[in-house]
Amino acid sequence: MKNIQQYIQDHKLRFVNELFDLLKTPSISADPMYKPQILKTANSIVQLLKDVGCKNVQSMSTQGNPVIYADKIIDPNLPTILVYGHYDVQPADPVDLWDTPPFEPIVKKTEIHPEGAIFARGACDDKGQMFMHIKALEFLIATNQLPCNVKFMIEGEEEIGSPSLANFIKKHTELFKNDVILISDTGMISNKQPSITTGLRGLSYVEVEVTGPNRDLHSGFFGGAVANPINILSQMIAKLHNKNNQVAIPGFYEDVYELSKDERIEIAKAPFDQKEYNKALNINKEHGELGYSTIERSSVRPTLDVNGIWGGYIGEGAKTVLPSKAFAKISMRLVAGQDPNTITQLFTDYFLSLAPTSVHVKVKPHHGGKAYRTPLNSLGYKAAHKAYSETFDKQPIPQPSGGSIPIVSLFKDVFNSHTILMGFGLNSDAIHSPNEHFGLFNFYKGIETIPYFYKHFTDLYLENEKNT
Amino acid sequence: MKNIQQYIQDHKLRFVNELFDLLKTPSISADPMYKPQILKTANSIVQLLKDVGCKNVQSMSTQGNPVIYADKIIDPNLPTILVYGHYDVQPADPVDLWDTPPFEPIVKKTEIHPEGAIFARGACDDKGQMFMHIKALEFLIATNQLPCNVKFMIEGEEEIGSPSLANFIKKHTELFKNDVILISDTGMISNKQPSITTGLRGLSYVEVEVTGPNRDLHSGFFGGAVANPINILSQMIAKLHNKNNQVAIPGFYEDVYELSKDERIEIAKAPFDQKEYNKALNINKEHGELGYSTIERSSVRPTLDVNGIWGGYIGEGAKTVLPSKAFAKISMRLVAGQDPNTITQLFTDYFLSLAPTSVHVKVKPHHGGKAYRTPLNSLGYKAAHKAYSETFDKQPIPQPSGGSIPIVSLFKDVFNSHTILMGFGLNSDAIHSPNEHFGLFNFYKGIETIPYFYKHFTDLYLENEKNT
Repeated sequence: MKNIQQYIQDHKLRFVNELFDLLKTPSISADPMYKPQILKTANSIVQLLKDVGCKNVQSMSTQGNPVIYADKIIDPNLPTILVYGHYDVQPADPVDLWDTPPFEPIVKKTEIHPEGAIFARGACDDKGQMFMHIKALEFLIATNQLPCNVKFMIEGEEEIGSPSLANFIKKHTELFKNDVILISDTGMISNKQPSITTGLRGLSYVEVEVTGPNRDLHSGFFGGAVANPINILSQMIAKLHNKNNQVAIPGFYEDVYELSKDERIEIAKAPFDQKEYNKALNINKEHGELGYSTIERSSVRPTLDVNGIWGGYIGEGAKTVLPSKAFAKISMRLVAGQDPNTITQLFTDYFLSLAPTSVHVKVKPHHGGKAYRTPLNSLGYKAAHKAYSETFDKQPIPQPSGGSIPIVSLFKDVFNSHTILMGFGLNSDAIHSPNEHFGLFNFYKGIETIPYFYKHFTDLYLENEKNT
Repeated sequence: MKNIQQYIQDHKLRFVNELFDLLKTPSISADPMYKPQILKTANSIVQLLKDVGCKNVQSMSTQGNPVIYADKIIDPNLPTILVYGHYDVQPADPVDLWDTPPFEPIVKKTEIHPEGAIFARGACDDKGQMFMHIKALEFLIATNQLPCNVKFMIEGEEEIGSPSLANFIKKHTELFKNDVILISDTGMISNKQPSITTGLRGLSYVEVEVTGPNRDLHSGFFGGAVANPINILSQMIAKLHNKNNQVAIPGFYEDVYELSKDERIEIAKAPFDQKEYNKALNINKEHGELGYSTIERSSVRPTLDVNGIWGGYIGEGAKTVLPSKAFAKISMRLVAGQDPNTITQLFTDYFLSLAPTSVHVKVKPHHGGKAYRTPLNSLGYKAAHKAYSETFDKQPIPQPSGGSIPIVSLFKDVFNSHTILMGFGLNSDAIHSPNEHFGLFNFYKGIETIPYFYKHFTDLYLENEKNT
């Protein structure tokens, strides 16, 4: 790619400023209160895509938040890359744990990012990474080097499980037709060791409600004689794991793809230091399924976590209430072989079976998605491998991730295309946490690497066409 | 008592209006934000006591909220009754479950209160019941029928466990010296069957904090490999009861006063209908310690309830967070024989022992108090029995309550006086809950019955003096 480094050098201040503008709007999809900010952000993306030279840019309505479409079609005989990203962000709470306000982006230096990192909710996940693609395309168009066709699909509900996207893409399959899907919404091992995410966990997310008496009661007058929904919920949650920290739901592991010995040896090769890991999290000991390593537990094994719990009096001081209700949000990460609908049903059946007759229990499914694996022999993976090798001067390592992008397995079904997960974030970037950030090195490196992917994918695609 | 019914008839509208004024101020002691409302309410009480003819009325400072003192000493040879009450109230949340705003008092008719009830936070607990004493004294002074000396102690921290009162009364023991203590902060069986509370449970209230990683994490990248404090807290809470629903803390029952067969037969005589009880609470089944009845479980057996729990994401929608911390507020009701400090220590030792090495756990004691029993052969109990018999035209039943007024056992130690619990509320009054109310019948009946207690107590006291 001619002049890519020079182009970034010449425009990087503007790039950061444009991204800052995007980061200032709290486009939180989990809370309906932020709908105006969602729409404002969608409109900003439309403008950014128009500005770099995209055609047919439009904010398309869905059952939920709009999806942005844009394209740049230069030749129907050339391959088409679909870039997927999302403009919605996670809630920022607990806000008081942020060192600077989550929606006032700022560049600060850190030990890991001596050249500076952008601190803001969405800096890495996913406004910053999605924005890299817009700027990479700006470079390709501005310097007349675009080698293929490009389409964009930027959605606004990823952080709540993309509830509208399945229907949307089934309705607009032709419009979004593509030869490969490119997503930057994951991370890599370190700035010195690039990696490409080759697996994602699936997800089943549910909310449970346990009701005891029909109203909050005085725990002095009723305590001991009426089921306390918090005590009961705790007892039910405790039964979701067995003593080996395996998920205790009957049938949960039945369809799990069990790793071969060779695969486990391969995984064990990734650089990892348990002591450093524990130190960074300030924990005395790791905690997880017996018989598996930390990397395996957090990437290729299924899990169950309570993501939130509440009930009774949670204010200052003491209140002796026996509450009517207690709630929990519970998510299960799934691996290859597990079907999210089946797992949600298994969870529901088991959870309801744990309830004593003294309470009423409801289980509400939130959303889910299947796990995904990128084949290492696919054209897309090969092109990404070449791109990283060129810009990092080091071969990237394939790495399964423990995270979920539920839509990816659906893309495979609908478009029959592989998804290439070129993430440039780091594990330490604190996505979904207070003080989320994205290194400037990573931001610029992403903009630099993406055009090489376009080039190599087009070359491999055309070569492949010729041979078949 | 001459003209008591007529006096109430002539002044009842004013009584209700004066009480409404008190109820309009949210004097919530659990939340420091309401300090101005606490002070305003204390000043209102001072004025009310002055208005009825009390002397030496003063708002006395403590380490926390002020205690109101007032007296009417007519003759040092006559007995002195100390009236204790509190002007602070419970928090009103969940506010959205109130049919009318909690601090806008209103009279509405209900099935149980066909003549109307006052709905407001504090209507029954304890502003309404405390205020009855001020109006009973108004009657006695206005009609020149006060038979003895009276002192008032109205505090503002009862709902948070009276943390300042122990030091305060030790410092002012002489000022509050008395021959019997009278409290209306409990209930009775029904408007047709009066009862006198003869027992209170003690209390140990703690707050626990479980910390996993040092920051909120993405449950996709860390879930399964790092201890989730909500899962762990749930597992620890589940171990606080055994399968017979007994408290599983080692030593918890060691000092418990075990009821005799005769005492259990006596308790079983109280009117009670389990079917009606379950229906009123909309539960399919009661829930509690194996081998005991609902009345026993909720009055004379010790219990453990989680009063509040929180951790992780509790907003709208879904957030896949593995939180850093989870919290719970836990209270234990204690019975005769159990020492709250010992129990708090036993809880702490056991709870810490349940923690796996992958988390850090803190236990913070909130407050506590011993259980209390009123002897049925005490002068005070006898005087109360006579008073109810006269105004209700029916003999009252002695009844142990499951609630706690931790200060009562301390009063016994400091003043060597018995406390007589003349409560006029009903179980259905929803104290500590949304839609708290206090029947007008009960309010007026309280004002009518209290003067008879003064008369009978004085008579019994003087007779007793003569005989000894």
